[in-house]
Amino acid sequence: MKFGVVIFPSKKLQDLANSYRKRYDPHYALITPHLTLKNSFEATEEEAKEFAENLREIARSTNAFSLKTAKISSFQPVNNVIYFKVEPTEELSSLHAAVNQEFSEQNLEYAFVPHITIGQKLSNDEHSDVFGSLRMTKINHEETVDRFHLLYQLENGSWTVYETFRLGKE
Amino acid sequence: MKFGVVIFPSKKLQDLANSYRKRYDPHYALITPHLTLKNSFEATEEEAKEFAENLREIARSTNAFSLKTAKISSFQPVNNVIYFKVEPTEELSSLHAAVNQEFSEQNLEYAFVPHITIGQKLSNDEHSDVFGSLRMTKINHEETVDRFHLLYQLENGSWTVYETFRLGKE
Repeated sequence: MKFGVVIFPSKKLQDLANSYRKRYDPHYALITPHLTLKNSFEATEEEAKEFAENLREIARSTNAFSLKTAKISSFQPVNNVIYFKVEPTEELSSLHAAVNQEFSEQNLEYAFVPHITIGQKLSNDEHSDVFGSLRMTKINHEETVDRFHLLYQLENGSWTVYETFRLGKE
Repeated sequence: MKFGVVIFPSKKLQDLANSYRKRYDPHYALITPHLTLKNSFEATEEEAKEFAENLREIARSTNAFSLKTAKISSFQPVNNVIYFKVEPTEELSSLHAAVNQEFSEQNLEYAFVPHITIGQKLSNDEHSDVFGSLRMTKINHEETVDRFHLLYQLENGSWTVYETFRLGKE
């Protein structure tokens, strides 16, 4: 089974992200807007139970923190993903590192670029058009993150929440 | 904002439900397969926080229980919903009653028919065809339910998990 760890932002930010995803993200119907903390990885249900225990520990020792977005960016030329850039903060980076040190280490050799995808799998021309028209858009939004989620993927590609972890709580 | 309370069954049962929902349920892309404990209701985010506190209490005092499905049924003639019939158990009924006594009382005058929808919004002719071909299908499945979820709905109609409540846990 495939698992992943994400933050779902507030309804307000999700609705805004969906107004773009609807047109530019083929994953629109598979998962609601999110910030990925740990990319999808294979695990058995038993392994996931243990992993969830560890995530509970991480959540307990992490305080709620602020999430800020200011603009729309792109991973070009690496790939044609367009996203709300989330301001990197120490709290977010620490949470990302803690979650990724668990179970299967991932991406620790890469810089973590926190983001909420609003467009992907665009051709180069589409990417140029869309990003050209969005790059100056201001996304001035701030909210408090007080939870994150462990998900698993169904055979049709959609994601279900396995468990929520509230920050700083028993 | 609209909220709702559901049980997401195991991946195995969800994949099976989706094999039908893909063809027969227009809500296929909006939410993964689920058993509804409390229908959607309006609440503010502040009210939902309080409601979540109460659900946490309910979860703490409820033990994990068994969920069994045996066959495919329909709510005809009331409506054209086709579903996996979930065996009513005392544990499930108690959980349903507890969740519905909280916040906005709902449906307490109706009998609770636990089910996982696999088809809806079918015309009468479609319903006859589909249910006619599925009514003899055996869905012999049993699993343990150890959590339920509070969800909220985005503007596009899709549902995001706000929080998971694990049964019998702090």
